[in-house]
Amino acid sequence: MKFSFKNDYSEGCHPNILQALLQDNIDQQAGYGEDEYSLKAKKSIKEKIKNPNSDIYFVSGGTQANLIVISSILRPYQCAVSASTGHILNNETGAIEATGHKILSIEKEDGKLTPADIIPVLDSHRNVPHQVMPKLVYISNSTELGTIYTLKELEELSSFCKENSLYLFMDGARIGHGLTSEISDLTLEKVAELTDVFYLGGTKNGALIGEAIVINNQELQQDFAFNIKQKGALLAKGRLLGIQFLELMKNDLYFDLAKHANQQAMKMKNAMKERGVQFLSDTYTNQIFPILKNDIIEKLSEKFEFYVWKKIDDNFSAIRLITSWNTGDEPVNDFIEIIKDQL
Amino acid sequence: MKFSFKNDYSEGCHPNILQALLQDNIDQQAGYGEDEYSLKAKKSIKEKIKNPNSDIYFVSGGTQANLIVISSILRPYQCAVSASTGHILNNETGAIEATGHKILSIEKEDGKLTPADIIPVLDSHRNVPHQVMPKLVYISNSTELGTIYTLKELEELSSFCKENSLYLFMDGARIGHGLTSEISDLTLEKVAELTDVFYLGGTKNGALIGEAIVINNQELQQDFAFNIKQKGALLAKGRLLGIQFLELMKNDLYFDLAKHANQQAMKMKNAMKERGVQFLSDTYTNQIFPILKNDIIEKLSEKFEFYVWKKIDDNFSAIRLITSWNTGDEPVNDFIEIIKDQL
Amino acid sequence: MKFSFKNDYSEGCHPNILQALLQDNIDQQAGYGEDEYSLKAKKSIKEKIKNPNSDIYFVSGGTQANLIVISSILRPYQCAVSASTGHILNNETGAIEATGHKILSIEKEDGKLTPADIIPVLDSHRNVPHQVMPKLVYISNSTELGTIYTLKELEELSSFCKENSLYLFMDGARIGHGLTSEISDLTLEKVAELTDVFYLGGTKNGALIGEAIVINNQELQQDFAFNIKQKGALLAKGRLLGIQFLELMKNDLYFDLAKHANQQAMKMKNAMKERGVQFLSDTYTNQIFPILKNDIIEKLSEKFEFYVWKKIDDNFSAIRLITSWNTGDEPVNDFIEIIKDQL
Amino acid sequence: MKFSFKNDYSEGCHPNILQALLQDNIDQQAGYGEDEYSLKAKKSIKEKIKNPNSDIYFVSGGTQANLIVISSILRPYQCAVSASTGHILNNETGAIEATGHKILSIEKEDGKLTPADIIPVLDSHRNVPHQVMPKLVYISNSTELGTIYTLKELEELSSFCKENSLYLFMDGARIGHGLTSEISDLTLEKVAELTDVFYLGGTKNGALIGEAIVINNQELQQDFAFNIKQKGALLAKGRLLGIQFLELMKNDLYFDLAKHANQQAMKMKNAMKERGVQFLSDTYTNQIFPILKNDIIEKLSEKFEFYVWKKIDDNFSAIRLITSWNTGDEPVNDFIEIIKDQL
Repeated sequence: MKFSFKNDYSEGCHPNILQALLQDNIDQQAGYGEDEYSLKAKKSIKEKIKNPNSDIYFVSGGTQANLIVISSILRPYQCAVSASTGHILNNETGAIEATGHKILSIEKEDGKLTPADIIPVLDSHRNVPHQVMPKLVYISNSTELGTIYTLKELEELSSFCKENSLYLFMDGARIGHGLTSEISDLTLEKVAELTDVFYLGGTKNGALIGEAIVINNQELQQDFAFNIKQKGALLAKGRLLGIQFLELMKNDLYFDLAKHANQQAMKMKNAMKERGVQFLSDTYTNQIFPILKNDIIEKLSEKFEFYVWKKIDDNFSAIRLITSWNTGDEPVNDFIEIIKDQL
Repeated sequence: MKFSFKNDYSEGCHPNILQALLQDNIDQQAGYGEDEYSLKAKKSIKEKIKNPNSDIYFVSGGTQANLIVISSILRPYQCAVSASTGHILNNETGAIEATGHKILSIEKEDGKLTPADIIPVLDSHRNVPHQVMPKLVYISNSTELGTIYTLKELEELSSFCKENSLYLFMDGARIGHGLTSEISDLTLEKVAELTDVFYLGGTKNGALIGEAIVINNQELQQDFAFNIKQKGALLAKGRLLGIQFLELMKNDLYFDLAKHANQQAMKMKNAMKERGVQFLSDTYTNQIFPILKNDIIEKLSEKFEFYVWKKIDDNFSAIRLITSWNTGDEPVNDFIEIIKDQL
Repeated sequence: MKFSFKNDYSEGCHPNILQALLQDNIDQQAGYGEDEYSLKAKKSIKEKIKNPNSDIYFVSGGTQANLIVISSILRPYQCAVSASTGHILNNETGAIEATGHKILSIEKEDGKLTPADIIPVLDSHRNVPHQVMPKLVYISNSTELGTIYTLKELEELSSFCKENSLYLFMDGARIGHGLTSEISDLTLEKVAELTDVFYLGGTKNGALIGEAIVINNQELQQDFAFNIKQKGALLAKGRLLGIQFLELMKNDLYFDLAKHANQQAMKMKNAMKERGVQFLSDTYTNQIFPILKNDIIEKLSEKFEFYVWKKIDDNFSAIRLITSWNTGDEPVNDFIEIIKDQL
Repeated sequence: MKFSFKNDYSEGCHPNILQALLQDNIDQQAGYGEDEYSLKAKKSIKEKIKNPNSDIYFVSGGTQANLIVISSILRPYQCAVSASTGHILNNETGAIEATGHKILSIEKEDGKLTPADIIPVLDSHRNVPHQVMPKLVYISNSTELGTIYTLKELEELSSFCKENSLYLFMDGARIGHGLTSEISDLTLEKVAELTDVFYLGGTKNGALIGEAIVINNQELQQDFAFNIKQKGALLAKGRLLGIQFLELMKNDLYFDLAKHANQQAMKMKNAMKERGVQFLSDTYTNQIFPILKNDIIEKLSEKFEFYVWKKIDDNFSAIRLITSWNTGDEPVNDFIEIIKDQL
């Protein structure tokens, strides 16, 4: 069996979660997220973001979180704005549009949005009422390309959004990896302060399923639970989500897992960098995109699974390597060995 | 802590499932339902329904299953037909309508539909193109009231639907309880033969989450996976669903759990019947609706949690008692003790 | 050619409208409702409702008006409430549901809603977040059965809605007929005061097409134009709608036309009443529902077209007769002649 | 009053239409498009396209036609593909997305799509089920930029669509102008043969309102009328649409009007070309985009209204001039006079 660097959801979940599921399995709990584990997990997240007024809801996955949040915020004629690399644009089977809302795409190489990117979109959408009204800015951190926002970048984007009556929504499917990146100066507390809504992704960071939607803007909190139910996302046994986030929040396990994933990726990145390998983008999270000769890629693919991301020229291609909370030293060392051997 | 008869999803899951989750936790698997557990679980279900041509998809919950199935089948101007007690009508926050489709309600005391119920709905919706076109009949078994369909009833309904170009969809959130009821002559194989689509509910029968949608009508199978993804229901770690159904299918655990729940309910029912208690409906599954004097209800509520379902008159009310795969003998005996003591 | 009493949209439009279309045909005007005729027509309506702060939009028809208004007001999880006879429930091919919103139906014989009708609906929809949230009350005046609201009835309904945070929306497809009924004590000014939104129907009262949506609740006015455009209802040559309403408002032509239609219906009604004919409902607008012997119905159908509305018993049926702004004395007298002859 | 070259819907309608409306005003007709005028108009269109099996429906405007056609064809997970200049992408307030469907945009300078443009879109949307499925190709002729398709281009596109199971839909808001362009070798008959659906635009070619949707693909005809009604597009007095298209089809008035508009535009274009003016695109329909010095634009704007379309540099801008069926010689000559005077 080849080891897979294809994604960060190939394994099950962190053992602590399974232990907690075992231990709490038989006690009777209220359904639909009113169980004590969910309530405790919400409390714990509020403490970490230092905002007792945020509202928290657990759902099963990222697409579900995105479609519920966006459709709950926008009026029928309003739309979202996203970098062209946005998950909602490319990899969710039109889930947002299926709720009735357009997404305006902004071509970006690095997957990140700045006020300067958004201004022309606003300027070209002023022909009332013939055009959709941009109302929500969708960003992800870390992005789909592994890049991250700095504190300053997020502050500027947040101010810009407020000045322009835009809501700022951060897809945090990999927020753990973003915040624990060795080059990140952003904190969870700051994310909560600077966004209207964001979520903490569990699925890609050690949970079986689950994302924790955090609604900081109180105006957007009203009646939110209805949206969860209507979109089929309210689990009868909400304890499954509550227990997981409770465990992940304990002793910052969540962040330790993400940091581990990042570190394993950085080991491989540095080994390649030392040998002069170029990268599609200079990332410091658990996604790296080295550009390698095709014969080396072939060699690597004998032992590992990964995606060939982009053809560069006839001889070179970029591959995508993703590490997870559970990526051990062995596959990383094996990978580095091959690189050393070949380059 | 009072014992709760409020519903069948108060506890976690059957221990076998947790054991399997533990055992298979670390091996790497393909995402999005392509893991080996999901594939095996699908195979197992196909064997049980004796139809290798059915398509099977796992989703997280009942509302999600309902909205995905119904919206995938209907054209924009077509609608569903349901008994007035239908879960999709009353308890899903307008989830079906949110996908654009009306549900026509047929007033029924027992929660079941017959051809005779549906004919007038068809007859009163022939003013083309000013009215929605009824196209899908939604039934549940066991129903929201604990009643069940007999083989003959389902055969008649199925024939009627075919003759009238209607699709027949069975909500099987409690199909285990329906089929293992002591008075049921219906089999899973027959359900698969007589419906276009149905699902096997896991959440209410021993799983943490999960419903297995079974598409028997091949015309409805095309491209179905897109709908799962678009509605946010495709779990990255699909193994979570696969492992559960694989365990539930082993040695018919699924049906044993349901039968157990039914038997515990029947014990309480029979004890009350012997003492002359009337019931709102004469059910043989894990939901019973005894009509009791208010002071007895008060007495019972000191030790148990349950819903007071319907006021009958100033002195009597019907309560709803639900048992689960995990309801032990102790609470059942305690309950019967009080009944014997009071009546 | 038989004369048709089937509906009030069988003929073209009032000659004044055609004259105005002819006269103003060639001058160049701004598109999309910014033409001077539309602006003047809006001003004229505001004067008649004595509310300079209402916003007015012209659309083509009733279903279009209903779906735009309702979908613009409701959040995804909110629903409308309607009498079971409501046009939106039965005759619009699920247009409201197609925008994502459920309609809760209240069984009513007379087509009218009272606070007492709505209270149980609110009471049975408090299981947050498992049920839709009733948020808008849809009424029509005159109703689909020709009945009307009195001032007191509308005042009570309006107060009730305000107390319960419900929006009140009046479908005014036949508001002219409702307000000019000989038994009506309601005025257009009062309708504007007591509803959040209503519309003045043109199609059924002498226009070629056109309904004038009047938004009285300022909170609902924001960005409304976007909804008109998004639903495909913004006419490039908005002048077509503006010119029509401008003509209809001149010298209260709109109300004169409706009064005429009512009077022609009343002549027939009174002639039948004098001969002891019973009616399905005691209406005073342009719709009457006499209960006649089948052989008389057959006799009438030799000279007239109309709908047989409801079978009463083996010998009697109710028919529906609708008069219009253009129903002359001749068909009315001919009809009465036959009645006198046969009864 | 300045003469407006802003669009082709500034005036009312061709006098023949008003005459017909006057003449037929009082006779009673069936509602909802079943009137004899509509039936005759449909017959007439079928004769012109030489396809008795096409189905024809009249609606009020282009956005309405687009949203009804597209939403009627696509399954929830399918999407449309359009040139980046497409009206559905930029000028319809997200109307298509509001029905649940994404539109994939292909960057094109000339507003036209070729198989080579579409292939990469298909290739980058094969990650089933994580991406929308392209299923319908939306084109317009003449395009939003005044350009047109040749017979060969449409044949190639049509073949490509068939081979790839894509539907081809032509927005014909300006199909008259497209087909009567002096450089067009395409015929209405060929359009009907090569597209699955198209429409004949009335609003921009001499009607008050109205587009005639022509469904050539019989598989797409089933139950289409329901969609018209559900989207609020079925006029009670369908005669208004029928009479207009009946008049427009008589003696090919429709094409004569379009040809006139084109000719007036060509007069201005040629006068400018003779004086060395460059154009944003080399169009031969009723839309021209000359690039003029800003001081000349200012001069022209003293006598004419038009849109400044695009800034070219500090001294030059492109303006958009649109002529209509009713643009007389006087404004055209006046315009040319100024050009001659200034250049």
